[in-house]
Amino acid sequence: MKSHLLGALLLASAAPALGQTSIATLPPPALVDPKVATLRDHALESDHYAWDIVEGLTTEVGQRLAGTEAEARARDWAVKTLTALGFSNVHVEPFDMPVWTRGAEGAEIVSPFPQKLVVAALGYSGSTGPEGVTGEIVHFDSVDALRAAPDSAVKGKIVFIDHDMMPAQDGSGYGQFGAPRRQGPTIASLKGALAIVIRSIGTDHHRNPHTGVQYFTDGAAPIPAGALTVPDSEQLVRILKRGKPVVMHLTLVSQKTAGGRSGNVVAEIPGRDPNAPVLLVGGHLDSWDQGTGAIDDGAGVAITTAAAKQIMDAGRPLRTIRVVWFGAEEPGGFGGTALAKAHAGDRYAIAGESDFGADRIWRFGTQLMKTDPATYRALEAALAPLGIVKNDKAEADGTDVDETIKAGAPWISLGQDGTRYFDIHHTPDDTLDKIDPVQLRQNVAAWTAALAIMSGGIEPEPKRRPRR
Amino acid sequence: MKSHLLGALLLASAAPALGQTSIATLPPPALVDPKVATLRDHALESDHYAWDIVEGLTTEVGQRLAGTEAEARARDWAVKTLTALGFSNVHVEPFDMPVWTRGAEGAEIVSPFPQKLVVAALGYSGSTGPEGVTGEIVHFDSVDALRAAPDSAVKGKIVFIDHDMMPAQDGSGYGQFGAPRRQGPTIASLKGALAIVIRSIGTDHHRNPHTGVQYFTDGAAPIPAGALTVPDSEQLVRILKRGKPVVMHLTLVSQKTAGGRSGNVVAEIPGRDPNAPVLLVGGHLDSWDQGTGAIDDGAGVAITTAAAKQIMDAGRPLRTIRVVWFGAEEPGGFGGTALAKAHAGDRYAIAGESDFGADRIWRFGTQLMKTDPATYRALEAALAPLGIVKNDKAEADGTDVDETIKAGAPWISLGQDGTRYFDIHHTPDDTLDKIDPVQLRQNVAAWTAALAIMSGGIEPEPKRRPRR
Repeated sequence: MKSHLLGALLLASAAPALGQTSIATLPPPALVDPKVATLRDHALESDHYAWDIVEGLTTEVGQRLAGTEAEARARDWAVKTLTALGFSNVHVEPFDMPVWTRGAEGAEIVSPFPQKLVVAALGYSGSTGPEGVTGEIVHFDSVDALRAAPDSAVKGKIVFIDHDMMPAQDGSGYGQFGAPRRQGPTIASLKGALAIVIRSIGTDHHRNPHTGVQYFTDGAAPIPAGALTVPDSEQLVRILKRGKPVVMHLTLVSQKTAGGRSGNVVAEIPGRDPNAPVLLVGGHLDSWDQGTGAIDDGAGVAITTAAAKQIMDAGRPLRTIRVVWFGAEEPGGFGGTALAKAHAGDRYAIAGESDFGADRIWRFGTQLMKTDPATYRALEAALAPLGIVKNDKAEADGTDVDETIKAGAPWISLGQDGTRYFDIHHTPDDTLDKIDPVQLRQNVAAWTAALAIMSGGIEPEPKRRPRR
Repeated sequence: MKSHLLGALLLASAAPALGQTSIATLPPPALVDPKVATLRDHALESDHYAWDIVEGLTTEVGQRLAGTEAEARARDWAVKTLTALGFSNVHVEPFDMPVWTRGAEGAEIVSPFPQKLVVAALGYSGSTGPEGVTGEIVHFDSVDALRAAPDSAVKGKIVFIDHDMMPAQDGSGYGQFGAPRRQGPTIASLKGALAIVIRSIGTDHHRNPHTGVQYFTDGAAPIPAGALTVPDSEQLVRILKRGKPVVMHLTLVSQKTAGGRSGNVVAEIPGRDPNAPVLLVGGHLDSWDQGTGAIDDGAGVAITTAAAKQIMDAGRPLRTIRVVWFGAEEPGGFGGTALAKAHAGDRYAIAGESDFGADRIWRFGTQLMKTDPATYRALEAALAPLGIVKNDKAEADGTDVDETIKAGAPWISLGQDGTRYFDIHHTPDDTLDKIDPVQLRQNVAAWTAALAIMSGGIEPEPKRRPRR
């Protein structure tokens, strides 16, 4: 009948428009290895290693500013903890770095409306000295507006750069809206500014400033550089809108010293095949100094270590799993660079890190999509029950594994939901209570599944004969 | 038919069980005066006075600690603003008070896990001096547990009182869970404690401490008394749970001086009948010193003043509307006491204040329920379209109008949704961005409707003859 034919035609033509492929043309089904599923689900339901690590590190050490005595205590804690968990070859790989530390800080509107604002120095900020500096505010709504300004508009003044970063699940605002922090101080210095304050690179509305690193490049002399909280930046904009000259007294006492020392803490689960390429995973041990570094990045070392420990509990992988708690990531990825250098000859099956908080992983991507499609499909199948979608357009990311990847290691990225990450990132508010234990376990489950798949197979440990 | 009869019986018997009254027995319908509805809806849709006041006060003055030069500037701002809005009889009624001010602050765990915590002194805290004090922490999970402890357990130590206040729409946790702040310092002092820190009386998880007032009573000598943030209190509990002695270095520099001065700012819309009892409304002008006092209580003076201004724009009320911006509420209701004393002979038709933030009003109560049921029903009818329910069990509340009510004024209470109030209350986070302009307008609309109903009727101003 005509109506039947029309129906069939509609079906055939409508399907592609809806993005639906014929079942006949689909690739063979990817099934999840029951061993992998069991490990994944066990971690999802009952992992406690990750919580224990991040709770212990943030409680018993607290903040761990790179190159300081606190970070050294954190390394001692890491060695003790990783050894107690049964990892092999636990050791510190030290390296040198310049150390920046924070001193007294404050910002005060002198006129027209006297009041205190909340500010924090950016990493490698110049120092105002304890007496502070006083200058008129000159306001720009982007780093480009500052670049376009004549030197005469900036010289001797305190530059203020505003912006309006919005939350994004993939964290995509951090690149663009982070420019005032990364480039602003150098540009302001080259134009002769007395100092610079920026609106915190953050998406919250709390009186907690977001610090973060910046460097003075292009021969720019260090000037005091700080971040106002978001509410204080909005307050400053309201004050500026009254149209009167705004004078600020700014105090940012800070210190930079050469000859500091940091280190990477390395631990392994030795593979059955010592010659097989290694799986490299980790996060960074150092933190900024105002919170306790719970989401940045206590969570990352906890998640990846817990996943490795879940594998260890199940037996011995074919490939060695190397867990690294990187040192001195925040001031510029010193640990990642040191690791790549120290292990230049090593061969890697994969390199990946966790450094975007502790909220749910929502998507993943890996170079294996092109080089090892079967493993890619196995990852896709094993991660989908955790709600994780494949991201075919993913690119390598991560400061700590960046140099290792550039040197040739294949990469994997398990992307966390960053919607609330920049509410907390680099603020005093980065504390343990921001971690949701249920979402933390989902992270561990995803990494456990990924390591299990990429490990080359896990065999039960041979039973050791009791000594006689 | 039997089934019909059964149906009728079920209907008759089920109705009371569901709380449904027969329509025949309901009181006569209460209809909203169209003039009142028009004023209410105009405020709801387009009031800008409240936003302008709270934006202006928090921007151009900022914090307004009671008795300080900042509060004096706020009074100047208030007089200027109320005069410009067209209020009559704008003046300051000064009074004396002791002034407490905050100095340097800090808390540091010395052992077993060295780290800094975030603390703020409570009002009228004793001072540690700039060098601070060091002592072992003794932990109690309630103020009653502290009361029950032998002096020997407390003597020479730093008391820490924990609690677990939860958010509540009616703010009911503040009484019970506020006890550690109000009573803790005195009890600790009487038992010989070196100092006391409490978990902030707050429901948030940010690194912003909640200050607030306390007094040393019963002959207790002032000791340093501070509030740790909620995340820091939880951190301290985790550290204490490790079972090792915990030593804290505490610095709370603060100063109390006699001979301070504050004042109430009073403004009026003169009623057509100068002998009619007055409508008294307002909020408090002073704030704590760390935020800009947006929700506590810039919003309150803004809401009540905007509502009065909406009446003024419509014409002249029969009864005088008196708006008071009370001084020095936070340190103990000095302004409310001063007003009641200065106006001891005045007769009031109503007294009410707005001092619970700027979120939606969700219920109301008033003494008029008993003394003037017709007005009560008119209020009920006019407020219901704003989502406001009557609260037959309400009691008088409010520090500023308390003494006036005790002296005989009938009271009205328009209760705001306090679910998030104690996230922000008395913290550095009390800033303008916490106010939702839409909810602020709902507040103005409710107060406008209430004032219109209680005003005795608004008549258009007689047209003034142009001067020749």
